[in-house]
Amino acid sequence: MKVAVGVHIIADLYGVDSEVISEASRLYPIMEGAVKFGGLTKISSDYYQFQPRGASGIVLLAESHLSFHTWPEHGLVTLDIYTCGDPKTADSALEYVLNELKPTSIDCKRITRGEKLDENVPIAKAAEAITP
Amino acid sequence: MKVAVGVHIIADLYGVDSEVISEASRLYPIMEGAVKFGGLTKISSDYYQFQPRGASGIVLLAESHLSFHTWPEHGLVTLDIYTCGDPKTADSALEYVLNELKPTSIDCKRITRGEKLDENVPIAKAAEAITP
Repeated sequence: MKVAVGVHIIADLYGVDSEVISEASRLYPIMEGAVKFGGLTKISSDYYQFQPRGASGIVLLAESHLSFHTWPEHGLVTLDIYTCGDPKTADSALEYVLNELKPTSIDCKRITRGEKLDENVPIAKAAEAITP
Repeated sequence: MKVAVGVHIIADLYGVDSEVISEASRLYPIMEGAVKFGGLTKISSDYYQFQPRGASGIVLLAESHLSFHTWPEHGLVTLDIYTCGDPKTADSALEYVLNELKPTSIDCKRITRGEKLDENVPIAKAAEAITP
């Protein structure tokens, strides 16, 4: 069963081989491999091939999700790994993707989801969020 | 065609009606409605019903994706709306979801994806990201 707080890794990968990230068929085994390596539980997955090149994909997990979008013309992959439960599973999945895609650099943020359930931190009224 | 920089809204919604967010079948029209209201382009979508209650779902978009995960026992929905192109589309989709789910409060972050393509900002070597 899921817990109320999850770790969301938001990673933009730069300098990735454009050939590799042009084709959904080449990204499929990498992302599915990351899920297995992380010990995550796949519910379903879907991959989409853009024309002439570029791909998007999502793996719905019992622990939340993994998603990616690629821009081969920029050597860019934007990756999300969001897991509830042991945060090491997200780290392991990220490690697998980085080892496969070998970006030259990465911009990585880690966000705790649902964290205000456990904190006495003031949060905005919903109406204030509509217009940023 | 997608552009290289996208807006990713990361929103944790608190105080949502537990009954509404218990069932994937009740969340389906809300999320699909948000995509339409935002003027976004759906590629595919997938929804999953947890037992005894709780749901996850993802809409793969030509502009990236929308995803959610619910914890009815906490009145919590974690929502992601990630769009490339006009950021107003993400705001509109968020507005729609908030109007439907009526959270009492929200913790909302806005992240620019792929932003380092356009900036001379130092970014980490990939190896440094594996162990946070």
